[in-house]
Amino acid sequence: MKRYTTVFLVGLVVLLAVVLAGVLVYMKNQPVQQRAVAPIVEIAPMEPDSSKWGINFPNQWASLLKTETNNIDTTYGGSSQFSWLERDPRQVILFAGYPFSKDYNDDRGHMNMLEDVRATKRLNLNDEDPKHTPATCYSCKSANNPALWDEMGMEAYDAMSFNEMTPNIHEPIGCANCHEASSMRLIVTNPALDEALKAQGKDWTTFTRQEMRTVVCANCHVEYYFQGAGKYLTFPWAKGTQIDQIVEYYEESGFKDWEYPETGTPMLKAQHPEFEFFTAGSTHYNAGVSCADCHMPYVRDGASKYSSHDVKSPLLTVEQSCGTCHTDTEAVVRRVNTIQEQIATTKQDTEDAIIDAITALKAAAANPDADQALLDQARNLHRKAQYMWDFVSAENSTGFHNPEYALKILAESTNLARQAQMLAAQSVNDPGLLATGTYYKTAPAQ
Amino acid sequence: MKRYTTVFLVGLVVLLAVVLAGVLVYMKNQPVQQRAVAPIVEIAPMEPDSSKWGINFPNQWASLLKTETNNIDTTYGGSSQFSWLERDPRQVILFAGYPFSKDYNDDRGHMNMLEDVRATKRLNLNDEDPKHTPATCYSCKSANNPALWDEMGMEAYDAMSFNEMTPNIHEPIGCANCHEASSMRLIVTNPALDEALKAQGKDWTTFTRQEMRTVVCANCHVEYYFQGAGKYLTFPWAKGTQIDQIVEYYEESGFKDWEYPETGTPMLKAQHPEFEFFTAGSTHYNAGVSCADCHMPYVRDGASKYSSHDVKSPLLTVEQSCGTCHTDTEAVVRRVNTIQEQIATTKQDTEDAIIDAITALKAAAANPDADQALLDQARNLHRKAQYMWDFVSAENSTGFHNPEYALKILAESTNLARQAQMLAAQSVNDPGLLATGTYYKTAPAQ
Repeated sequence: MKRYTTVFLVGLVVLLAVVLAGVLVYMKNQPVQQRAVAPIVEIAPMEPDSSKWGINFPNQWASLLKTETNNIDTTYGGSSQFSWLERDPRQVILFAGYPFSKDYNDDRGHMNMLEDVRATKRLNLNDEDPKHTPATCYSCKSANNPALWDEMGMEAYDAMSFNEMTPNIHEPIGCANCHEASSMRLIVTNPALDEALKAQGKDWTTFTRQEMRTVVCANCHVEYYFQGAGKYLTFPWAKGTQIDQIVEYYEESGFKDWEYPETGTPMLKAQHPEFEFFTAGSTHYNAGVSCADCHMPYVRDGASKYSSHDVKSPLLTVEQSCGTCHTDTEAVVRRVNTIQEQIATTKQDTEDAIIDAITALKAAAANPDADQALLDQARNLHRKAQYMWDFVSAENSTGFHNPEYALKILAESTNLARQAQMLAAQSVNDPGLLATGTYYKTAPAQ
Repeated sequence: MKRYTTVFLVGLVVLLAVVLAGVLVYMKNQPVQQRAVAPIVEIAPMEPDSSKWGINFPNQWASLLKTETNNIDTTYGGSSQFSWLERDPRQVILFAGYPFSKDYNDDRGHMNMLEDVRATKRLNLNDEDPKHTPATCYSCKSANNPALWDEMGMEAYDAMSFNEMTPNIHEPIGCANCHEASSMRLIVTNPALDEALKAQGKDWTTFTRQEMRTVVCANCHVEYYFQGAGKYLTFPWAKGTQIDQIVEYYEESGFKDWEYPETGTPMLKAQHPEFEFFTAGSTHYNAGVSCADCHMPYVRDGASKYSSHDVKSPLLTVEQSCGTCHTDTEAVVRRVNTIQEQIATTKQDTEDAIIDAITALKAAAANPDADQALLDQARNLHRKAQYMWDFVSAENSTGFHNPEYALKILAESTNLARQAQMLAAQSVNDPGLLATGTYYKTAPAQ
């Protein structure tokens, strides 16, 4: 009898320990999203086909489908495919020698990603050797990616060419890019983001749901580059995500995207650093607002409330996006327009300064007697000035995600561009290279 | 009997008409502030002695008295009398040849105005000919002014010297500067503000009380200059209150505050354009917030609620000032610090650029062979760049009243300063004048 009691007690202790461990493991993980109804169908892990997820989440799926046709413009941005090169012909000069000077359209909604990346003239997929375009360009374009990365690893993925990868890619951006099928929790799916966070000592599985409502956007909406011969997708965050830390990273790595024609400047192209920009102490981020709060506001369908997946400019959903916190939404719209106008005009002044620097650098570089040390200093300032400008210009908010940051960066960029021009003039001892407004004196090469 | 009835009816009609007219006149004027209790004492119109008003309004008066000792600093400003010349030695160079390079202390609270204006070394009141300092300098320093302006007119006031006016001035800033004694409503008392508003077709008697809670601050917290030999107090608002409109005004008038030594630049000194700065579409102004909402927040004394007259930085009363709208006041403070840090560092970059321009201009101006047309263009850009910088620098919020505006202006100022430097180099065909960071190469002349 005593023996049975002992066995029973030991068994009970073990059972309790197992249950306790289970509870602790459960509690350690972020809270799992509660669903009001049981799923209708089971979703396979990393299921690429969003329409299958849509059976369980018809509202979210219906709103995601709207991104195919939500091509409405705002004053400074929006989701139509307008040409930046036509809207601001300075960009034709600024990206000379790089594919962005040939084809640079504003991006459409999520459902069009695949069609648009295959259509852009930037990739030159019909070249004699199309292999120079790596599969890495698909990294932010498809819901097939999480499963592919899981199966083959990102290194093997990125080592393939774009055209070789094409048969594996069928779906545009979808559910699997941000959600775990079994729990619907928000997850990091892009291995490059996972690695960049880990390098900073950050573990995204410990983030709150509200934090994840910003972090999952960083699966794509970040600055990145293709590292080395394997075109390995890499975020330049090793020193931090602030602009000066990213510039320092690139200076140490010596990476260049292309060489500017006739000036010899080793150039950098900024991508779309929305995450870095917004999280750099912006008013809204500081107030605890996430990307999804504004771009995926809660909307209603009858009695059910859901986060709209029709991701677009909050200026198109002011009541739902801004009205949650701001009572006077008309005032909000006025204010956004004022801020974006200030940034757009300041940005053009910066562009004019960089083009003046380019004009001077071309003349100096063509002069065999130029002081090469001064010329290299001038090139380095051109490189930094244009990257900083592009960090603001390529960021998809006309600076609104962090207006002060945008204007501070533009002020510094203009200053560096003017210093590049002055150094170019000094390198050939020719004050004739100090002309300003050179953009207006030459017809832009379209 | 019928005759009496007629007389009675006519009398009644006249009486009703008079009453109706009275009601209409009453309604046309802005709502008169309601007082909970009848006044204890009658206050004479434009009574300079605030202690007499204090009998009726003891809380307001007690809080006004606190401004004598509220000399607490914030990170970037505050109300202690720290020296700007010591905090930022670049300002010694930037104001060379002007009294601000000798004495430039931060301003203390309202009750110290009189003591401080009489103590500043800028006025040189012990000069052999102290008459060069006009009485106009008292315009924003005393509650005696409304009565004096009423009695003698501003033209006669401004035509006197500072020392001649001194016997008439006993009181620091007080009740009479913003309130009408009979009604306690907020009023414009400075004739220069009245004239500047009228010139824009604006009638302040039609403004709402909330509008007046910003406009009365413009009795003093504005950009102004002393016009002509009569030193007539004038706000440069004829074209508007935006920075480009004010610069255009000064360009047309050709006014200068002083000539910069060795460069020959006709300089402008910005005063404290808080009103122009805040009302230029800032976030808070756009949201309907007034100066008083933040700087004179409602506080409680037992059961009575009143607007604190201890005017100072809202960073010292975050709960009362910011907490009315912002729930997370710790986040507010972090955000204010981030913004002010961005503006303070950008401002120093602008100062460095202007000092480089000054260094180049001095060398060019000393060269008899300089192209005078180019040199004059360079001087004009120096004039504009420094005025725009000063418009931000002299404004008492380290840009926080309108951060994007501050940064946009600083970006433009830096650009103009670099262009001034380049033109100076071109005027003498000497790329040697393109050195940058010249401030760091010379010990500031203290």
